[in-house]
Amino acid sequence: DQSKVSDAQDPFANEPKRHPALKPSSEKPFNAETPPGMLMSSFYTPNDIFFVRSHLPTPEVNANQYELEISGPGMAEGVLTLSDIKKFPKYTVTSVIQCGGNRRSEMNAVKALKGLNWEAGAIGNATWSGAKLSDVLQASGVSESVVQKSKHIQFEGYDVGADGSPYGASIPLEKGMNPFGDVLLAYEMNGEPIPRDHGFPIRLVVPGVVGARNVKWLNRIILSDRESDSHWQQNDYKGFNPSISWDDVDFSKSPAIQNMPVTSAICTPESNELITPGKLTLKGYAWSGGGNKVIRVDITADGGKTWKEADIIKQEDVTEPHHYGWTLWKVELDVPKDSESVEVWSKAVDSSYNVQPETFENIWNLRGLLSNAYSKKIYHVK
Amino acid sequence: DQSKVSDAQDPFANEPKRHPALKPSSEKPFNAETPPGMLMSSFYTPNDIFFVRSHLPTPEVNANQYELEISGPGMAEGVLTLSDIKKFPKYTVTSVIQCGGNRRSEMNAVKALKGLNWEAGAIGNATWSGAKLSDVLQASGVSESVVQKSKHIQFEGYDVGADGSPYGASIPLEKGMNPFGDVLLAYEMNGEPIPRDHGFPIRLVVPGVVGARNVKWLNRIILSDRESDSHWQQNDYKGFNPSISWDDVDFSKSPAIQNMPVTSAICTPESNELITPGKLTLKGYAWSGGGNKVIRVDITADGGKTWKEADIIKQEDVTEPHHYGWTLWKVELDVPKDSESVEVWSKAVDSSYNVQPETFENIWNLRGLLSNAYSKKIYHVK
Ligand SMILES: [Mo]
Ligand SMILES: [Mo]
Repeated sequence: DQSKVSDAQDPFANEPKRHPALKPSSEKPFNAETPPGMLMSSFYTPNDIFFVRSHLPTPEVNANQYELEISGPGMAEGVLTLSDIKKFPKYTVTSVIQCGGNRRSEMNAVKALKGLNWEAGAIGNATWSGAKLSDVLQASGVSESVVQKSKHIQFEGYDVGADGSPYGASIPLEKGMNPFGDVLLAYEMNGEPIPRDHGFPIRLVVPGVVGARNVKWLNRIILSDRESDSHWQQNDYKGFNPSISWDDVDFSKSPAIQNMPVTSAICTPESNELITPGKLTLKGYAWSGGGNKVIRVDITADGGKTWKEADIIKQEDVTEPHHYGWTLWKVELDVPKDSESVEVWSKAVDSSYNVQPETFENIWNLRGLLSNAYSKKIYHVK
Repeated sequence: DQSKVSDAQDPFANEPKRHPALKPSSEKPFNAETPPGMLMSSFYTPNDIFFVRSHLPTPEVNANQYELEISGPGMAEGVLTLSDIKKFPKYTVTSVIQCGGNRRSEMNAVKALKGLNWEAGAIGNATWSGAKLSDVLQASGVSESVVQKSKHIQFEGYDVGADGSPYGASIPLEKGMNPFGDVLLAYEMNGEPIPRDHGFPIRLVVPGVVGARNVKWLNRIILSDRESDSHWQQNDYKGFNPSISWDDVDFSKSPAIQNMPVTSAICTPESNELITPGKLTLKGYAWSGGGNKVIRVDITADGGKTWKEADIIKQEDVTEPHHYGWTLWKVELDVPKDSESVEVWSKAVDSSYNVQPETFENIWNLRGLLSNAYSKKIYHVK
């Protein structure tokens, strides 16, 4: 049977089952977002509808045979099993993970670009539990002299491409070594073992930092004086000036995205819903990277002439710069009887008083990353 | 002599001499900015032309009699002299200090507000040398139990108002206690004893944080579970939604400004200069708070249709989140022969990929703080 033979040769033949509500942006590798309206149902995004962003076929890692290698300049390589990792003190951090390209479709709409056409659902908020990376490194022979010789911590996943090379990323040494950095080797997501699509059995969770550095199916940790030389660290996940095109882009000239800027999105009503005159309730999320907390979400229905502060539905009581969870908000507006449509904008402000930029035109970049301009929706009135 | 009597009763009678180039925005207290063009002459802003922002009459503190009191919940009060402070390891940090209202005049231009009418010169970049606050606190009996009972570090200056109460401010405990926070008890500014206008003999330097928390003439440090109850912490230096007016403002609803958002300003040519067709060189500064580094400054001369990346004139080689100095930049543009005027905009992007907002209208607030929209200048052609 030819189809069975080709299935067996297909690196994507052994993919996990996914929730039917997930909206795929690509099938191989599987990438899919949560419908933005569903994000509003709970503060912690359920595991089975949490957006999936994989760059390579999904590995199936046997927890009993799981090994994590740790190495660095001048140190003996260490190997930890899953039960070794579980012996460290267990920490739980609430953190958003957001794809670097979340909301890309809104940027694409002003000028075509390359990338998965995400709406506002390539983001989710969860609790992550596991060992602190700083505890594990300290116990694994990472001495002061190893640290002195290093500036970055590189990570590799168990997921490999057609050429046999793994997914890779790195973060600055200080974020990983500093106990205040809150970086985890997580084995639980929302209190359950991490699902296969999200990195079973160990996912690196780097709170406040772009999804691409939150390496799934973690296989290897390497302290180094250099960033990861992976495609995703060197030639992707970087921002550029709006006038840089594929003809003149030089990826070596721009820093790898780490902390993500402040964003917000209006999630309900969904874009295609008709509304009625009278009270209109908008709901959405807001978030900022780098451990910043969202301090305010402003809404306008008249192009910025007047702004109304949204009510916070829920936000964790954690202080910046350790506030990694998102903020759910709502606001009630009046839709006059004679209106045909209403255009609403949301803008979030974070604890460093950074604010979203107004337009996608002025932050446009050829990969459609960092797409954090005002969320603008036009609703038609029945 | 009546004038001498009233001088003697004037709390502002004993003010230091100031450099004639400083442009005052108020005389009593003395507040004055550096002409933005002069900021471009050096990476480190010279002490004598560094902007002055004082809220009260300038105290004259005798270095030999200087005392700094340290107290906290459940601890014996400590007192340090200047020579005690100089015995700690000496650190030097390059940091901008920026008034929370820098560039307010540009926000005021779109709608009137209350505050000193600063142009872009209420900012300066300097080296600050002194003891680390975290070292001093640790040596002064601030035990783990004192820390556990505290969330903030309050500061009081030797400057007092008509009612006898001092200038006061506070910062989050973590910023001050964390050795990575880089907070200094500074006794030198650009290698010289701190000038009287800038806090002689000890100024608290909180890198990345609004000027108002960088308490001059430091007299008292108080660990506490509460923020400073001073006017400047509670009822000023906070941001609000553009629709909040003096009739409905509630200062208790907004967090005190700490880290400052990303900003930039075009400094030369000065606003009133006529330019000639041909090459036009713009120079300016860019800066972001919270230890973020400026990674890019984009310039447009066609309302955002095309953006040119500015060249960095100078920036320190320090990694975020410890990059506190500013970035000086320049760019060369072509002014066509037949043009009557040219409108240029600058926007900075920082290492968390936060970007300046486009317009002052959408970030307007009744105190004119956080005035960090694009710097826009129109030059007329001769
Ligand atoms: Mo991503
Ligand atoms: Mo200020």
